[in-house]
Parts: sequence; C-alpha cells; structure tokens
Amino acid sequence: MAFNSFGNILRLTSFGESHGVAIGGIIDGFPAGVKLDLDAVQKALDRRKPGQSKIVTQRKESDTVEFLSGIFEGKSTGTSIGFIIRNTNQRSKDYAHNTDVYRPSHADFTYNKKYGIRDYRGGGRSSARETANWVVAGALAKQLIASISIDAFTSSVGEIAMDKTYDQLDFSQTEANIVRCPDRTVANKMIDKIKEIRKQGDAIGGTITCVAQNVPVGLGEPIFHKLHAELGKAMLSLNAVKGFEFGSGFEGTKMKGRQHNDIFNEDGSTQTNLSGGVQGGISNGMDIHFRVAFKPVATIMQKQPTINSQGKATEIMGKGRHDPCVVPRAVPVVEALTALVLADFYLLNKMRREQ
Amino acid sequence: MAFNSFGNILRLTSFGESHGVAIGGIIDGFPAGVKLDLDAVQKALDRRKPGQSKIVTQRKESDTVEFLSGIFEGKSTGTSIGFIIRNTNQRSKDYAHNTDVYRPSHADFTYNKKYGIRDYRGGGRSSARETANWVVAGALAKQLIASISIDAFTSSVGEIAMDKTYDQLDFSQTEANIVRCPDRTVANKMIDKIKEIRKQGDAIGGTITCVAQNVPVGLGEPIFHKLHAELGKAMLSLNAVKGFEFGSGFEGTKMKGRQHNDIFNEDGSTQTNLSGGVQGGISNGMDIHFRVAFKPVATIMQKQPTINSQGKATEIMGKGRHDPCVVPRAVPVVEALTALVLADFYLLNKMRREQ
Amino acid sequence: MAFNSFGNILRLTSFGESHGVAIGGIIDGFPAGVKLDLDAVQKALDRRKPGQSKIVTQRKESDTVEFLSGIFEGKSTGTSIGFIIRNTNQRSKDYAHNTDVYRPSHADFTYNKKYGIRDYRGGGRSSARETANWVVAGALAKQLIASISIDAFTSSVGEIAMDKTYDQLDFSQTEANIVRCPDRTVANKMIDKIKEIRKQGDAIGGTITCVAQNVPVGLGEPIFHKLHAELGKAMLSLNAVKGFEFGSGFEGTKMKGRQHNDIFNEDGSTQTNLSGGVQGGISNGMDIHFRVAFKPVATIMQKQPTINSQGKATEIMGKGRHDPCVVPRAVPVVEALTALVLADFYLLNKMRREQ
Amino acid sequence: MAFNSFGNILRLTSFGESHGVAIGGIIDGFPAGVKLDLDAVQKALDRRKPGQSKIVTQRKESDTVEFLSGIFEGKSTGTSIGFIIRNTNQRSKDYAHNTDVYRPSHADFTYNKKYGIRDYRGGGRSSARETANWVVAGALAKQLIASISIDAFTSSVGEIAMDKTYDQLDFSQTEANIVRCPDRTVANKMIDKIKEIRKQGDAIGGTITCVAQNVPVGLGEPIFHKLHAELGKAMLSLNAVKGFEFGSGFEGTKMKGRQHNDIFNEDGSTQTNLSGGVQGGISNGMDIHFRVAFKPVATIMQKQPTINSQGKATEIMGKGRHDPCVVPRAVPVVEALTALVLADFYLLNKMRREQ
Repeated sequence: MAFNSFGNILRLTSFGESHGVAIGGIIDGFPAGVKLDLDAVQKALDRRKPGQSKIVTQRKESDTVEFLSGIFEGKSTGTSIGFIIRNTNQRSKDYAHNTDVYRPSHADFTYNKKYGIRDYRGGGRSSARETANWVVAGALAKQLIASISIDAFTSSVGEIAMDKTYDQLDFSQTEANIVRCPDRTVANKMIDKIKEIRKQGDAIGGTITCVAQNVPVGLGEPIFHKLHAELGKAMLSLNAVKGFEFGSGFEGTKMKGRQHNDIFNEDGSTQTNLSGGVQGGISNGMDIHFRVAFKPVATIMQKQPTINSQGKATEIMGKGRHDPCVVPRAVPVVEALTALVLADFYLLNKMRREQ
Repeated sequence: MAFNSFGNILRLTSFGESHGVAIGGIIDGFPAGVKLDLDAVQKALDRRKPGQSKIVTQRKESDTVEFLSGIFEGKSTGTSIGFIIRNTNQRSKDYAHNTDVYRPSHADFTYNKKYGIRDYRGGGRSSARETANWVVAGALAKQLIASISIDAFTSSVGEIAMDKTYDQLDFSQTEANIVRCPDRTVANKMIDKIKEIRKQGDAIGGTITCVAQNVPVGLGEPIFHKLHAELGKAMLSLNAVKGFEFGSGFEGTKMKGRQHNDIFNEDGSTQTNLSGGVQGGISNGMDIHFRVAFKPVATIMQKQPTINSQGKATEIMGKGRHDPCVVPRAVPVVEALTALVLADFYLLNKMRREQ
Repeated sequence: MAFNSFGNILRLTSFGESHGVAIGGIIDGFPAGVKLDLDAVQKALDRRKPGQSKIVTQRKESDTVEFLSGIFEGKSTGTSIGFIIRNTNQRSKDYAHNTDVYRPSHADFTYNKKYGIRDYRGGGRSSARETANWVVAGALAKQLIASISIDAFTSSVGEIAMDKTYDQLDFSQTEANIVRCPDRTVANKMIDKIKEIRKQGDAIGGTITCVAQNVPVGLGEPIFHKLHAELGKAMLSLNAVKGFEFGSGFEGTKMKGRQHNDIFNEDGSTQTNLSGGVQGGISNGMDIHFRVAFKPVATIMQKQPTINSQGKATEIMGKGRHDPCVVPRAVPVVEALTALVLADFYLLNKMRREQ
Repeated sequence: MAFNSFGNILRLTSFGESHGVAIGGIIDGFPAGVKLDLDAVQKALDRRKPGQSKIVTQRKESDTVEFLSGIFEGKSTGTSIGFIIRNTNQRSKDYAHNTDVYRPSHADFTYNKKYGIRDYRGGGRSSARETANWVVAGALAKQLIASISIDAFTSSVGEIAMDKTYDQLDFSQTEANIVRCPDRTVANKMIDKIKEIRKQGDAIGGTITCVAQNVPVGLGEPIFHKLHAELGKAMLSLNAVKGFEFGSGFEGTKMKGRQHNDIFNEDGSTQTNLSGGVQGGISNGMDIHFRVAFKPVATIMQKQPTINSQGKATEIMGKGRHDPCVVPRAVPVVEALTALVLADFYLLNKMRREQ
C-alpha cells in the first residue's frame, strides 16, 4: 500500500524530485539468475533523455543510472535492485518565479493544498523526470520477458494522425526519425507541426500506440487485476495522459456484437483482433494493442493569467526548457511501463495452476 | 496482493460464480461509527438487477443482499463487513451447450488456458454478475462520502450520442427512463435502437459518462495512485469496457497548450475544466468527469462459427437471457466503482499531512 | 493493506462476530487444479469446535462450513474461495451484563476506545471464534502442500511441562487424549490440572509446540518476510498468545556460538537443529519447530472488580461457557496457521528464480 | 507484496548488500509538514555503527546517511524519502575464503539453494548491515511520534541477566556504558563476559528488553495486524533473533486467570500490566514492554568443520571483524523497529473512526 510503488510481484518503488540530489528506485521481486545487459538500460534512458533532438526540451541531462545492489557478476541475485540517477543540470533559478505562483493546469495548486508544502523547483515530485526511473525498471523487466516484443510509436500529433493500422508499419523505422513515427511521410508532417508550435511558444498533444507481440496466453488476473486494466492504470500514471483505449476502443462502442466478435481459428488464434489481445482480463496470445492520449503540456512560453498561493491574481510565463510536445520522449516510457506490467503478470502466472 | 481485492484502505474482496451457491464479499477498512442505510444498498442493487425493463436481460434474480457482520445497531463497527447474495434463478441448462465450446470474444478460452479448468456455467467467475458485489460495496462507500454527489448516465448507444455537455443536463431525470439517459429525446432514440438490436438477436455498444461533484481538494496520491489512474483502472475492470478518458480525453490531444490550460479564478476554482477535476493525480475541487467505452457484449442470439476445447471447428448460438446493450445496467456499477475509489482516497488523505 | 487479511499470494480475508449471523472468509490465490477433500476441512473444524470434551467450553456449536465458490467438480478453479460458518448457538443473553462493563484483560476497553462502538456480545470480532475461519483456510492450504507434515501438540499446561523433545514423541498419539499431548502420562496430569482449575472457576495458561517436517529448502523471503517472522506473526495473531520462539529460542541466548552452530552433513542436512529449520529467514530442509505461549484466558467464573464505560467502579463475573484452558482447542489452529504460512511461501518461491 | 518492504502506511523499502556499492531505502507514506532533525538520524546511526567500543566488531565504517528526496527546507514534503549509505570500508578479501564454502548456521546454504546464486562477500543481502537502513527509517519515524518514548536495553548476556524489572531502572543510564544496560553493576559483568568470549574467539547470545511509554490508546489493528504481532514480526526480522515475548510472556503461561488479569483503575489504567500494554491487539495506554532473544552469532574465530557447495567436507574459520555479542549494537535497531511499527499504526488509526 505504498504510494510510490508500482506492480505486484515485480515492484518498482521510486523517489526523487526533479531538482533534488537524485532520483532513483528499488526494483523488488526480480527473479534470481537473469543475465542482465546494463548497457541496454542506459540506451533506453538515452531514448528518453532531454536534449536528444530539436523538437524536445533543450535541457542537457546525462541521465546516467548507477546500480547499487541486486546484481552480482552480471546476473540478478533475487535481492532488491537499488539504483539512482543523479540530477546534474538543474537550473533551479528558472523556477524561482514559481515559488509562490500556481502554474495553470500544473500540480502546483493541488500539491500545495494537499500537503501544505511543496518543492516548487521544476515541479518537484510531480515532474515527468520521475519517468526516467520507470525506464530503468522497464528496461530490466524487458530482459525478463525477452521473447515478448514491445513497440510503441507516435500515432498522432495534434490533428496529424497515422492513417495506417499498426500491422502495416515497420517498427524498425520508429527510431529512424526524431518524432518516433515509423511512417516517414507522416513523421515529417508531425515534426513540422511541433517546430511550428515551438516557435509559437505553445504546446501540442498527441497519441501513442503500443503493440506487444508474442505474449503468452494466460497473463492477467481476472476481476481486479485484469491485464488491460493494469496497462490502463500504468498509462494513466504517466504525466499528461488523459485517456486509454485498447483493441476496438471508443470506436468499438458503435459496433454490433456480430461485427465485434473475434472468430476463432482452429489453433486458438482469432481472425480479427478487436479484443486487443485480452479476453476476460487475460491475454489470449494475439497482439496486445492500445492507444494513449496525451494532452498538450501545461508549460508554455507565453504569458498567462494565474493566481498565487494567497489567491491573488498575477501572471506567469514559462521560462525553463520544455517540450513543445511530450509524445516523442514518452514513447520509451510507454514501452517501459508495458514491460513492467507484462513481466509482473508473467511472474504471477507461475503460481496460478498446479499440475 | 490478492487477485480479488480492490482498494487500498477501503478494500473490497469478493468471490462468486454466476451459477454457484452465492456471490459476496468482504469490505475492509470501513471506519467505525457511520450510520448505515441498508435499504439504500438494496435500492442500488435493484438498479443493476436483471429483468428490470424491456431492454435488459429477462433473467429474474431477486439479488437480495444479506449482511453478515461489521454492522451493529445500525452503525459500522470498524470491523470487516461480510455480505452474500444468493444465486436463486440460475438456469444452468442454458449453458450445458457451452461445456466444451469456446464462445467467441468471451473469457472461456483464456480461463481454460490459464487455469486448465473453468466453471462453464454462465461464465462462472468471469460473469458480470460479480458487479452486484461492487454495487453493494459502492453503496456503502457512498454513505461514507455523503457530501460528494456521483452521477453516471448513458451518453451514447451505438452511433446515437448525447449532444449536450453534462452541465446542461438534469441528473434527476436519469432514472426517468429505462436507458438511463437524462435527455428524454436522446433516451427515446437509444431505447428504440436497443429494441431493434434485440430483435436482430444482436448486441450494441455504448458509452457512460460519470460526474463527481463537490469532491474535496486533495484526493489522490501522486505517482502510482493518481486519482484518475485508479478511476481508470476501476472502470477497465468492468466487463466489456474498452476505453477510459477523463477531462478533455482523446479530443484534448488535438489542442494546443494555450487552449487547454484551465485558468484559475481567485478562489482557486478554474474558468474551464479540461483537466477533469484532477491535476497531478490529485483532485482540485472542480467536477471530476470521465467517459467509459463499452463494446457490444459477445453473447448474441445468432449462430456463429467457433471452436471447442480440442480445437475443432463447431458452431454456437447464445441461448441464455442476455442484455442486448449492457450500458443501462452498467450505470449504477460505474457510480459504485467511483464511490469506492473516492472513499478510499478520502480515507488515505487523512494521513498525508501533520498540522 | 487490508486489516482482516493474512498472507501474500495465498491470502485469507475474513469477517464475523461471535454472535453475529455468520463468520466466514475468502481464500484468494489458491491455485487451480487441486483436488480438494472437503470432508477433511470439516474434520479439522471438529477438532477446534466447542463442546468436544469435558475440559473445554460446553457451548454446542456445530460449526458447519459452507463453501460458496471457487470449487468446481471437486477441484479448485483458481478463483476466490468464499465460505461461511453460520452462528447457530449464540446465547447472547449470557453477555447482556457486559453491555457497558469492561471485562479485565479483554479487548472491551480497547475496542471501545478505538472505535467508539463495539459489538459487546461474546467479544464480537475480538472473539476466538474467528479462528474457525483460519482452520478452514488452513485445512485447504494443507492440501496444497500435502507432502509437508505439520504436527502441533500441547507441551505444557501451567507448570506441567513435557520433559521430552519432540523427536521422542509419537504424533499419532496426539489425538488419543483430550488435551492433545502425545505423551499419555503427561497428558493425564494436564487433564487433571485443567479439571481442577475449572472447578475453581479459574483459568490456566500453557504452551503449544509445533513441528513441520519434510519442508523443502528455500521457503521464506529474506529481510521482511522471513519464514520464522511470518510464523511468529501468525502465532501472535492468535488470541491469548504472549510469546513465540523457534529453534533454540530463549534458552539459546545463554549458549556460545561454538555450541549453537549447526554443523553440516555432506548432504546439506545438519547434525543439530538449533536453527529450528530456518537460516537467514529461509527453510533449510530440517524440521521447523517452534513454541507458542498462551496466557490463561481472561474470562473466569469468579467475581472481579472492574469499571464500566463511564469509568465507574463495578464488579463482573463470567457467565458464558468458557474454556478453562484454551491450549487443547488451539492445537488445530496452530497447525492451520502454519499451513497457511508454508503454503504462501511455497507459492512465492515459484517465482524467485529463472532457470 | 514486495519482499523488501516493511510497514503498511509508513513503509520502508530497502536494498543493499554488505559489500556492494551502497545500501539504502525509500520511506513512503511519511506525512508532509513534519520538521525533521537529520542530525538525530545520524546520531542514531552512530549508536549502531561498528567500531564504537571494544566489545563490538572493530570494522570502521563511517555509515553516513545521504538523503536524496522528500525533504525540503527542513520539512517532510509527503513524497517518498530516498536515502543511501555508501559502503566505504569493505574488506572483501576477508571473505574470499567463503566463495564456495557454507558457513555453519549462516544464510549461505539457504540463499544458494533458493536463488542459485549469492553475493558471498560478507553475507551479501543477509548481512546485518541492512539494519542500518532500519535505523535511518526508525529515527525519522520517532520524530513523527515524538511524544512516545521508546527505550531498549540489554537485559541479559549469556547467563548474566538483569534482576530488576524495567520500572526500577533509569533509562538515561543506558548509554552510560558500552553494553547498553542501565544497571551499572550488571553492565560491568556483561562487559567482562563479552571480553572473555571474544578472547576465546567465540560468541554469546543475550536478550534485549524494550519499553514504549506514553503510547496513545487505540494503536493496532485487530485480527491480522495486531500491535504485538507486528512488533513480534519486526523483531523476528532482526538477524540472530530466536524469540519474542511481551507482557507476561512465557512465564505467564504458568499463571492462573485470576492472577493474570489486569484490574482497571477508574481512569482506565490498570493496576498490573501483565498484558504488556496491548489488549485484543490494540494498545491500552499502559507501557508496552517486550523481550527479544538473540542467539550467539554464527561467525566465530575458531576452526569448524563444514561443507562446500559441492557437498564436500571442509573446514572454515572466521576471518573478518565480527561482534562477539550482537546485543549492544542491536539495542538501537530494536528501538528503530519499534518506532516504525508504532508510527505506522499511529497513521492507520487516523482512519478508523468517523466522528
């Protein structure tokens, strides 16, 4: 019942403020004897890090993870894995103007009202910097379920949306452009859109689609730990997310049962996959696919009216180095969270049946 | 880490198969000293029960809840509240044909693969009958947070969608019609649509919108127990749900930051509410509003191809008494889950701050 | 974080007051596919039930368990197992005199102060009647870990103590007498002692020793879920328990390291077993043995001074039908709790290592 | 359900091997707005640290805690508190001889069998070095429940036992000697005993008594989170502990009910306190007192027969710098764990009752 923990058996507990000494976490429940590639963890972090391209925040953070325990001679030992990422490039003075002012649509107001105190530097604990912890844990989780492939990509930026279904795409092209959309033509439009928005000092929303393939049948625990419900909760934990849908999603509400039912092939696979790979909360072996909605981030480089902690009207203008669109950097985070959920259910499933 | 438990402090653990002896649950963490109206619980159950109107399943189940503990002289005692609902009208023979056949887009296949055994009568544990347990728990939770109002309603059936925003509606009219849509004109269209679908022996999807008003500022725990993430998980636990969005939702992804930011009034309220009442995972005192997507149910009164447990092709045709559209009966369930989440966070919030 | 739940993966959540409608519970996490002998569960309950002999309480309760879910065609289905035991022979009028009076060394005072309300009939939730729930769950857990034998017995009543070590005893003789001590001579002395105490209208304490044999190596999770720590917690949850020791226990504190160390045989077994079958919180394959201390129960058939809820001095005299010594009836409860802990760790251990 | 977490609301999750880079933890659920004295935390660590006197291990470790998050401008912010303690003085070569050899009565054998891999340097995760993490968390917990006093002391070393009850002692004298026994005469005997044992290259056991005073009525959650059961579990989590008793403990089993019952005064206090401050699992406002049994540590400076991981007979002799008696250094750890348990229940109790 910890507030800063995620997962059941495989469990990440995390800490850290964006402008504190360090962020970090403890990964508990990771089985012993797994050979770990720690370079792959750092590479995953590099996909999330600021300053990686022209369309993301220009903050320079090295985001170097240091593992402190739980790994011995290249393998997991079954004990808890502690890690930290030092904060190296905090420009806290960028936030001096926030001390007493509530940024619109940020967590400043709610944190202050809830706790009576908040670390106002860079959003403190509410900052998306926390997601670097998730990427570390997710990168290890991926190595536990190495046979499952997990691919997320940018499926829309503002009004510019992918017009193909995921099975028409080549995921190896996702990293070929800075917006992380595997369709080059659409990607270019998205990049142009983000550049235009950045020039306006504004921000724009978007969606990410994620696909998990080669998932074994049987992952997910019915009733209150349904596979898609845990995926949904994970995605809704991500900063700026306003919606989650899987399989046929909101469009499916317009369909009839006859159309929507996925008819079985004799091998247990289905001819269609409107179920999105999950039936009754349990994976059925088909591709798991879902979509995540990100609102435009709240920090914009324009002057906006707001109030301070005394309820007095004032104005604020973003001064830090911010993402005009969080979607490209959120792609690896979506993958990391997916890996954490699937690995947790993979472990849980080991105990659900006696021979 | 129980698989059949929901909530942190206020916690429902449940059991029961649709055609077993009884379903029921244990509500743990309910504070002592709350005067309880048990008739209100039964009334909530009656809103969910089968056979209540012409557009829902014609099964007759009395769904009478029996409380077994935790209530003394009309008040909660702080000990766990046990309850059961006997199953009285199971027509298991309706399901004899399912013994060995996997119904398309049902949980038959996944349960069998996961557990190697399943109670095939009426879906067993995977049946939406479980949601009667949730309504019981939710009805008690509502009494713990009595000052908060929670109103759900049918906002679309198939293509027929409400064209007003929730603040233009009179929630007192929701129960005035059998589809539970507070706009009479739209309601009538929805009812006609469902009747048509039922005649076809088919099913249709829809959406429910839910609004919680008068929520105190500060509910929700940041990072991994964000208020909207728990609401999302709750809704995604509900049978047939394929999507969840709150505040601006998927539409919000098309907006710019300037448009999307909710500007503060001097009293801390906001001029718009695209945030949907939650910022940084914590309630900000504005209305919490969200939308839930339901696919058409899988059981239809038409012949469909499928396979049996040996992987042989066969055919199946629904024989039981089923809902052509689950949305009207799901309205009280959405309210119940919302109450459970809010009451849980209400209790958690008592410990987050020392004076 | 439920207050009425025990266990991690295999988890009992329970409810019920001694004089309410029923007690019962939900067993979650029980794996699918285990053939269950429900008669064995009832037999375990019969070993705990009141009225079974002259040295226990003369209340007559049939204690019949009714299973409501989770079992289908004789096997566990992997879904939650609900059960209830109706209360049939409550003589609540025996407790009318307790309405407002705090019985010394009972939970009346603390419950009232904590909750502001209490079900005063027969101790309500604080009654040892709850342990019938544990026996049900434990009897199922035993069937999950059938190769492990678990034997508890009465090792002392007041000053009368067993003078043999457990390996000198024949556990098949435990049920041969009503005090559940496998040494007939000592048993007779204990029985006489309890009869004498009952005549005095007084009560007496005692100890139970429990031995688990054939436990696989590797059960227990280090640091905060050590096998012996969970066993200790379980035993300390049992009414009237004041102490727990395992292996060398309190006597071991007087020894030197050289004496205390258990030297290995080449097969990994140890020549002595002062460790009590657990090293570093993990079972080492040797017998797990521990001892539990029970105080004399607080209800005595003698007049005692006390206070009422207004803090006024008054007198009280036990009127119900009570055990002069709880130890004989606690023997099956100690076994049940041991089975629950071991079965939980058996399941947990399935996920601790990848090949 | 994390294996390396302790507590419900106030929750420590920890990591670290004795000879790894660092140990550390995350404290979750600490309420916002508590002014924190971090020097007091370091002082608590200094009471536990090696090398502090002639009767403890001569390892020199500075044990400097570094806080990484959750504290802002001298106060808790309500977010998770991360901390690390770097390992600075590992002499891993002292353990090179252990690579493949199982030390008798250590966790080497069980870790290897459970996980198939272990960090053999200094006991790895099974080392009592972990308890430094507990002291950090406990020192913060103490500041949350500042009005409660918690005093532990050495009550026996081998056969040398305190002959006074705790209320005859002056706890301010506990730190006046290196064995942490507040009775100077007994302390001197204990010190001489430990010196003698150290000369023999052997080890000796002992007991610690702990007293919590000024505890509010109502802490503890009945049934499965009884106050004394959680204290017992906490103590049994401590390395080398073999037993726990509270109030009358094992001696109480020899008493009659009449003698054992604590008669109330009109103010709700009791004339005796054989209950040890807890009735029905809930604090009654009287002193909580308990006793913890420590076996002699397993590492001795004498040659002993043992086996290696291939099951071959060999010999081993302790080479590191070890405590001949762990009890003096365990005193602050017992206090820390007590503070963690009481603070957790203090927070839980805030939600148990509505006005």
